[in-house]
Amino acid sequence: MYISETKIRVRYAETDQMNVVYHGNYAQYFEVGRVESIRQLGLSYKDVEAMGVIMPVIEWTAKFIRPAHYDDLLTVRTTLKELPQGHRIEFIQEIYNEEGRLLTAGKVLLYFLRAGTMEKATMPEHMTDKLKSYFS
Amino acid sequence: MYISETKIRVRYAETDQMNVVYHGNYAQYFEVGRVESIRQLGLSYKDVEAMGVIMPVIEWTAKFIRPAHYDDLLTVRTTLKELPQGHRIEFIQEIYNEEGRLLTAGKVLLYFLRAGTMEKATMPEHMTDKLKSYFS
Amino acid sequence: MYISETKIRVRYAETDQMNVVYHGNYAQYFEVGRVESIRQLGLSYKDVEAMGVIMPVIEWTAKFIRPAHYDDLLTVRTTLKELPQGHRIEFIQEIYNEEGRLLTAGKVLLYFLRAGTMEKATMPEHMTDKLKSYFS
Amino acid sequence: MYISETKIRVRYAETDQMNVVYHGNYAQYFEVGRVESIRQLGLSYKDVEAMGVIMPVIEWTAKFIRPAHYDDLLTVRTTLKELPQGHRIEFIQEIYNEEGRLLTAGKVLLYFLRAGTMEKATMPEHMTDKLKSYFS
Repeated sequence: MYISETKIRVRYAETDQMNVVYHGNYAQYFEVGRVESIRQLGLSYKDVEAMGVIMPVIEWTAKFIRPAHYDDLLTVRTTLKELPQGHRIEFIQEIYNEEGRLLTAGKVLLYFLRAGTMEKATMPEHMTDKLKSYFS
Repeated sequence: MYISETKIRVRYAETDQMNVVYHGNYAQYFEVGRVESIRQLGLSYKDVEAMGVIMPVIEWTAKFIRPAHYDDLLTVRTTLKELPQGHRIEFIQEIYNEEGRLLTAGKVLLYFLRAGTMEKATMPEHMTDKLKSYFS
Repeated sequence: MYISETKIRVRYAETDQMNVVYHGNYAQYFEVGRVESIRQLGLSYKDVEAMGVIMPVIEWTAKFIRPAHYDDLLTVRTTLKELPQGHRIEFIQEIYNEEGRLLTAGKVLLYFLRAGTMEKATMPEHMTDKLKSYFS
Repeated sequence: MYISETKIRVRYAETDQMNVVYHGNYAQYFEVGRVESIRQLGLSYKDVEAMGVIMPVIEWTAKFIRPAHYDDLLTVRTTLKELPQGHRIEFIQEIYNEEGRLLTAGKVLLYFLRAGTMEKATMPEHMTDKLKSYFS
């Protein structure tokens, strides 16, 4: 299992007139969580794209349990429960507020695709190498 | 069953560097679908809020089957399979491109809440009246 | 002079906790105004990009005179005061509410650039042909 | 003169199909710059709103000199050239990339307004106290 955490400060632009973060903006928080999770492995999603592999989001589910508010400093926890096999990678993602309460819980499925042809690919070897030790 | 459709043109701002609509932006497309679905009943979500009821999104799932591109004229189809009972309302939402191909399919659960207290509420009677005939 | 108008409905996502449209979102409203202004000429910005020309925004000014609110049906008025010469094109843009009151007034300067090389280009001939009659 | 700096990492969602940050998203980067500039004084914009004062953006100008790219770590430099008098406050804002090159330069005028009545207000005393020493 590979777990990582990163912090995000809620922007004014991300609130709506319910005085909470608009639900659609959690897609960006989850994105930042995944990107920083890869960076903490010692590579970057930008590197992955530079290797000719893109990782589009194929499926996204989220439960909005408690609202996040303007200027909250959120913690995004990103978990890989299994070492990806084949072209699929699934992240479990949770967002906590400063009191440690769970605000949002979700799951995001992405594919590894070859950038030019959009054919199914697998996780770049370099990324597998970085991840392997968490799953033995 | 109550089904409604509305059109949305993809904005440049909504694309990302994969040359497709960023997956998080579908939350807005679904929102527009639900809002226009209520308007086609002869009231508006703004009216609902004016009656002291808000409808936050509680749960969201979406599958991204085919990408949408810049300037595509999308059709959002919004379906209520059941007349809401209690504080829950669930919309089935699909997005089609101009060739009629399904791009995105999702399900969005919202609650009716009293705006001030955030207590669970039920669908405003006026809205029930408008919807009833579709479910008999 | 070439003037065109288009309508935009304010989305919930575009409001912020001041209960008005977040100022940054006007960039998208202006974008829609320009894009529809080109479409009303009988071509599309997508066509322009397909000809190998991109039009990045180089300079932007906006005055926010009155707020726009959720579900408002806005009118974006887009004006070309001069037929573009060289690589510059400047749009005057205004946003009005349903009562015809001016909410936002701005000016957006874009360049015509060759997509691959980012070299300065000029307005595609096809677009000049469509525009010419408005400036004679 | 009061100058502050803060860092922002470009999100995937903030790029568009030109492979650069969509120009409208700089409004959010500028917002973060102003908010962190106030936080570095030892209070927060959230505190300001809690005191019953809101600061809507009244005018925004920006020049987009060089593009920002995905995953760039940007520096937002925010400058107050004068201690605000009356209901106006003007920020000079610049965005630099990791090589220290200027990408975007702008100016944002905000008003101090009383939240309930929208009447013109002045800078909260607490904020003036924090700022004064930079302008003597």
